[in-house]
Amino acid sequence: MPNILVTGFEPFEAARVNPSWEAARALDGREISGARIHARQLPCVLATANAALLDAMAQVEPELVLCLGLAAGRADVSVERVAINIVDARIPDNAGSQPIDEPIVPGGPAAYFSTLPIKAMVAALRAKGVPASVSQTAGTYVCNAVFYGLAHHIATQRPTVRGGFVHVPCLPEMAALLPGAPSMSLETLIYAVATMVETAMATEHDIKVEAGALH
Amino acid sequence: MPNILVTGFEPFEAARVNPSWEAARALDGREISGARIHARQLPCVLATANAALLDAMAQVEPELVLCLGLAAGRADVSVERVAINIVDARIPDNAGSQPIDEPIVPGGPAAYFSTLPIKAMVAALRAKGVPASVSQTAGTYVCNAVFYGLAHHIATQRPTVRGGFVHVPCLPEMAALLPGAPSMSLETLIYAVATMVETAMATEHDIKVEAGALH
Amino acid sequence: MPNILVTGFEPFEAARVNPSWEAARALDGREISGARIHARQLPCVLATANAALLDAMAQVEPELVLCLGLAAGRADVSVERVAINIVDARIPDNAGSQPIDEPIVPGGPAAYFSTLPIKAMVAALRAKGVPASVSQTAGTYVCNAVFYGLAHHIATQRPTVRGGFVHVPCLPEMAALLPGAPSMSLETLIYAVATMVETAMATEHDIKVEAGALH
Amino acid sequence: MPNILVTGFEPFEAARVNPSWEAARALDGREISGARIHARQLPCVLATANAALLDAMAQVEPELVLCLGLAAGRADVSVERVAINIVDARIPDNAGSQPIDEPIVPGGPAAYFSTLPIKAMVAALRAKGVPASVSQTAGTYVCNAVFYGLAHHIATQRPTVRGGFVHVPCLPEMAALLPGAPSMSLETLIYAVATMVETAMATEHDIKVEAGALH
Repeated sequence: MPNILVTGFEPFEAARVNPSWEAARALDGREISGARIHARQLPCVLATANAALLDAMAQVEPELVLCLGLAAGRADVSVERVAINIVDARIPDNAGSQPIDEPIVPGGPAAYFSTLPIKAMVAALRAKGVPASVSQTAGTYVCNAVFYGLAHHIATQRPTVRGGFVHVPCLPEMAALLPGAPSMSLETLIYAVATMVETAMATEHDIKVEAGALH
Repeated sequence: MPNILVTGFEPFEAARVNPSWEAARALDGREISGARIHARQLPCVLATANAALLDAMAQVEPELVLCLGLAAGRADVSVERVAINIVDARIPDNAGSQPIDEPIVPGGPAAYFSTLPIKAMVAALRAKGVPASVSQTAGTYVCNAVFYGLAHHIATQRPTVRGGFVHVPCLPEMAALLPGAPSMSLETLIYAVATMVETAMATEHDIKVEAGALH
Repeated sequence: MPNILVTGFEPFEAARVNPSWEAARALDGREISGARIHARQLPCVLATANAALLDAMAQVEPELVLCLGLAAGRADVSVERVAINIVDARIPDNAGSQPIDEPIVPGGPAAYFSTLPIKAMVAALRAKGVPASVSQTAGTYVCNAVFYGLAHHIATQRPTVRGGFVHVPCLPEMAALLPGAPSMSLETLIYAVATMVETAMATEHDIKVEAGALH
Repeated sequence: MPNILVTGFEPFEAARVNPSWEAARALDGREISGARIHARQLPCVLATANAALLDAMAQVEPELVLCLGLAAGRADVSVERVAINIVDARIPDNAGSQPIDEPIVPGGPAAYFSTLPIKAMVAALRAKGVPASVSQTAGTYVCNAVFYGLAHHIATQRPTVRGGFVHVPCLPEMAALLPGAPSMSLETLIYAVATMVETAMATEHDIKVEAGALH
């Protein structure tokens, strides 16, 4: 049976949970589209997150990788289009490190596009009643770094694997402490991740529908 | 057994459901804090909504009234502080009427404050993990009109009844059609309404905690 | 020659200037629509701001009063519709006082509507290229308190005077320190205040155009 | 005397002016830091904008290129970090074309980073009282396409030239028609562009200060 790797992050900043990991682990072991989900937690540490991802890929030997991360302040499931080769950390990571304008992979390409069918995934989510959109930036912190590391590894070592990154909103209990922050329930989130995996497994070529930004 | 009236609105604009009514009807008949919940749907019609509310109050004879309405674009359960004596309709209501700068009750006071313990309700919601805040404006449309009509009826006819208004976010399936709109699951919403009713029943005098706005 | 009183506030929080005062004082002494502008600065102190306003009114004997205040985070000139009889201070004022849920005038009405032609003012501003809108809440801090104090004084002591409140955005140099905050240049702001005074002097009855909020 | 090329766009959508061009042309012919500014207008047309840019570069032979574009809805001068090799047009361009997920340069790298000192430029703007920030995405429309075209041309043909892209807010008269949109006066904008050119001429290596995004 083919394998699918779904990663989430450990909590960071003041939060005690991270919805990206809660959603991933809820699906661990589940069979979707004839493949087995394997969930792994990544550290919110710039220096080690990508090594942990590569370890997980070596163990799981996935044909599809979906990395998840928290985007406090975003209202929907946002499927990332592109990873850029830079770290510019607005706050220190969980190891206290805060690099500024360092490449993730020295000498690597400036960016990689997701190899997941991002627009088909957004369309499937919306059709099932889950708020979702394509995002044009994954930021410049650990999430973008893992997305870039994944894409670089795929491009240079595992050309048959497909992978990408998705940002998710706060859980309601997190937003209750951040007045004004939008949220999404864990149930909706788990359903969203399952839907995205299913869509990615079923979609070889992405659909051509508009999901751009004027600026 | 004492009675509690919880109202929600029928759908309006393009929407097929209204979370305010979905949450109200889910609690219909339930017993909370030794009182019975009675849910009633109000029309999204400026000319008839308040008459429908008074009919429901005459039938139910509640000691507590909680009116709910949809606020597409708000991210949390927002407990309204004040109703103002004006209708300024940005769009036509479900009967096609769009009054501009008309009083809800000609000759009535300019405003009424909620007689619910709004800050205790927000504190209870947050403590239970539900995003919530105090709102300083209920707008100038049907929601504000019902809130004002309720408060005027209480002030002039039923001084022992307590009542107020709460705006709720879109459901996820509504936000899926409104890219960027925050949402809240129906489960969370039902839990929020039950929590607010319980808190209002248990709290005679509101707590003094800051929940203001600089502007 | 008739007199017009325009007030602005002293700086508060970390800011060194307050655009509401900069705009007011730039117009001090100017003649508009056959009337003389008198600018006065009010303290950002809940206990004394309204007494300072009444002193200024006693000195100036205005037929029109336009009070201005800063709304950091708002993008346009926002003309306030209604003042409410409550103080709920999110931060301490310049005297270190932070009342919670206290009336501005004990026993006073819950609210007053502006007696300025708020919609004609917004229409005139937009026609002249100045971003503007009607606002449904002036908050619960010093701005709202001065607006309420003004309206209460007019209603109870000076029924022939007209008056209201307008919130203005940050100056660019303030927004430069608050990443993400919108701003408006002082030149535009001065032009906006002159336009509003002129419109208010020329407009006895406000125009009926929609400027409401759904929630 | 060295030459500097500053480009702006023709108006698009319903607007009659484009602040990016108004700011550029106001500086045409001016001498800054011992170099001459040459302003050129680019069409808001995906198929021809980059050819027009290359023509202008061939004529002007600049050592520095600053391309400007409008970002309706943004509140500050936003200095773009990265251009990506994709067009995903949310609306048709001025020629009626709306490509979806097409590369700007087939076979080109996925992205280019700005070769301007983006953080020094933002620091200089803020120090002079102009709201500014680093942006992590230039969108997927004509602005991003010109930025990518410029960067590709520099990387492959003119390695000694430096260039980048900056998004600017609406003018106040545009925001007056778009309620809620932030704006910036043309005077501030012209001052901002002059400041950025001056800073770019004076700064060989960008400063290392944090300007990242968590997501």
